[in-house]
Amino acid sequence: MSWNKSLPSNPVVAVAGATGAVGQEFLKVLDDLKFPASRIIPLASAKSAGKKVMCGDTELTVEEMTPESFKGVDIALFSAGANVSRMFREAVVDAGAIMIDNSSAFRMEEDVPLVVPEVNPQDLEWHSGVIANPNCSTIMMVVALAALEKVAPIKRVVTSTYQAASGAGAPAMQELYDQTRAYLAGEPFEPHAFTDQIAFNVIPHIDVFLEDASTKEEWKMIVETRKIMGHPDMKVAANCARVPVLRSHSEYINVEFEAPITPEQAREALSAGESLVVNDDPAHNGYPMPALLAGTNDVYVGRIRKDFSVDYGISFWCVMDQIRKGAALNAVQIAQRLLG
Amino acid sequence: MSWNKSLPSNPVVAVAGATGAVGQEFLKVLDDLKFPASRIIPLASAKSAGKKVMCGDTELTVEEMTPESFKGVDIALFSAGANVSRMFREAVVDAGAIMIDNSSAFRMEEDVPLVVPEVNPQDLEWHSGVIANPNCSTIMMVVALAALEKVAPIKRVVTSTYQAASGAGAPAMQELYDQTRAYLAGEPFEPHAFTDQIAFNVIPHIDVFLEDASTKEEWKMIVETRKIMGHPDMKVAANCARVPVLRSHSEYINVEFEAPITPEQAREALSAGESLVVNDDPAHNGYPMPALLAGTNDVYVGRIRKDFSVDYGISFWCVMDQIRKGAALNAVQIAQRLLG
Repeated sequence: MSWNKSLPSNPVVAVAGATGAVGQEFLKVLDDLKFPASRIIPLASAKSAGKKVMCGDTELTVEEMTPESFKGVDIALFSAGANVSRMFREAVVDAGAIMIDNSSAFRMEEDVPLVVPEVNPQDLEWHSGVIANPNCSTIMMVVALAALEKVAPIKRVVTSTYQAASGAGAPAMQELYDQTRAYLAGEPFEPHAFTDQIAFNVIPHIDVFLEDASTKEEWKMIVETRKIMGHPDMKVAANCARVPVLRSHSEYINVEFEAPITPEQAREALSAGESLVVNDDPAHNGYPMPALLAGTNDVYVGRIRKDFSVDYGISFWCVMDQIRKGAALNAVQIAQRLLG
Repeated sequence: MSWNKSLPSNPVVAVAGATGAVGQEFLKVLDDLKFPASRIIPLASAKSAGKKVMCGDTELTVEEMTPESFKGVDIALFSAGANVSRMFREAVVDAGAIMIDNSSAFRMEEDVPLVVPEVNPQDLEWHSGVIANPNCSTIMMVVALAALEKVAPIKRVVTSTYQAASGAGAPAMQELYDQTRAYLAGEPFEPHAFTDQIAFNVIPHIDVFLEDASTKEEWKMIVETRKIMGHPDMKVAANCARVPVLRSHSEYINVEFEAPITPEQAREALSAGESLVVNDDPAHNGYPMPALLAGTNDVYVGRIRKDFSVDYGISFWCVMDQIRKGAALNAVQIAQRLLG
């Protein structure tokens, strides 16, 4: 089944989870990209109703999200957790709106396209009311892999991540700040947003553990990469860790190819890729770093070099603002493509 | 040529670089391990001469290091940088002392054994006056790989590191503290010990860049692993990064084997390995973390699981106090083995 309604050129946009880290960024990105909305409706739980949020210079009042909230809405951007997305899916679709969902709720469902506009825009053509926004760590990796795949077919990918606090939401970012302050002052602290101390620490655990002792975050990076890139059997190994960084994720990625590829070819392909910026100048200590890339829109790549441990190998480092391209920006870019 | 002098059972020990982060730890470890030194002589540059340092409850006065400092010395523990090691090598060996060098100066020289006592103690038999202590990131990896190799031969290793500030010395640890304080207070700061901001950041660059765009740290992890493990052609890919952590390094390691190995077999082999502690209890969020392991002596391993991207693959996470087992402790353990 595919969607047969057409969108108005000035759609009504609902933002579900408008007071969260990604929700706030949805409002900022809609304004930054001059998204042609006729109206923007910020929605949140009852306890946030009545709060004011800004979209550019416009102050908006947060409304309580109920099944009735979606009447007259054309596009609903969701970032309020998987359970909330599941709870409101029917109401959104029944109201005739398209749900662009940032949670993991529907990503692996067969009739839900999982889209990074630079990688698989063609998958927007067959949605049936719900489009899923991939996991942030996956987005940055596939943007780079899609560019490299134009040079040579990919055989196997091994990645280790350095993920920012923002991936766990706005309270987690605050916890990193507050806990670091407490640590430096020699004061006691209690972890809430994370399983353990995050200040001056690394936690090798993101999302819940699965039966095979991997984490759900690691599993997402494998299955989502396969779905987005259209390679159901692609060999991917992922190791995820949380580092004391605020809002940009980083990843080291080793790619083994089926055919020869030089670092120069890789660099050229990455430079030419959409939403990719290459910063790779070892002679001048030039490489992307998470603290310096907050608020940016692209996937930054550096440390591009030969991996001599396989016949045809390239390894590289990439960094992306987790809240923007990793979440809000990618979702709004999906909405832009829907408008055509 | 091999060394034909025997060591007294209560040797005179010189500590070169006694005021540095590792030098201080040498003194602490000699005391902790009740090393049977008849005398400990702390040495440093002229500007530190006269300073007091503690070895257990004993206060020692730092002496200026000159070629004459090594007369009557049996074992000289060096951690004062590669140039200082090169400068004093002849004086140490001529004085009849054995140099155990923590720098990278001689590690890859053919007549210098590179030793992790748990992995290649047999290489202590053919030294000719100089024994090299490996790079910290290499030590932790080979301690784990040597245990796993007892189950199945290793085909390829891919690692990404999460390295602490301490690897860049005591001033670097202080810089992480001071810069984090300044950052939180909104005050300006200037990086000195690192190429860039380290507070709330990740720097994908440790040691100098080489011609192939890898870093010397990455190169060390490859060539030192091969030398220590006695596999000159072992396939190793290494990606190194500095994280805002004080003194323990972490690594994710993906190992591809030549033959079947289950996570249970890997866990058993790692648990049985010397200087290895397995903390791997996903059900209770049990895994090693760098902030919680400062001052410990072992290599901690967790997140042991199947890597489904190859026929016979295991991936795991490991953490080690970079100053202790990564430097001072390993060197003193070498000295212990020399005493027999």
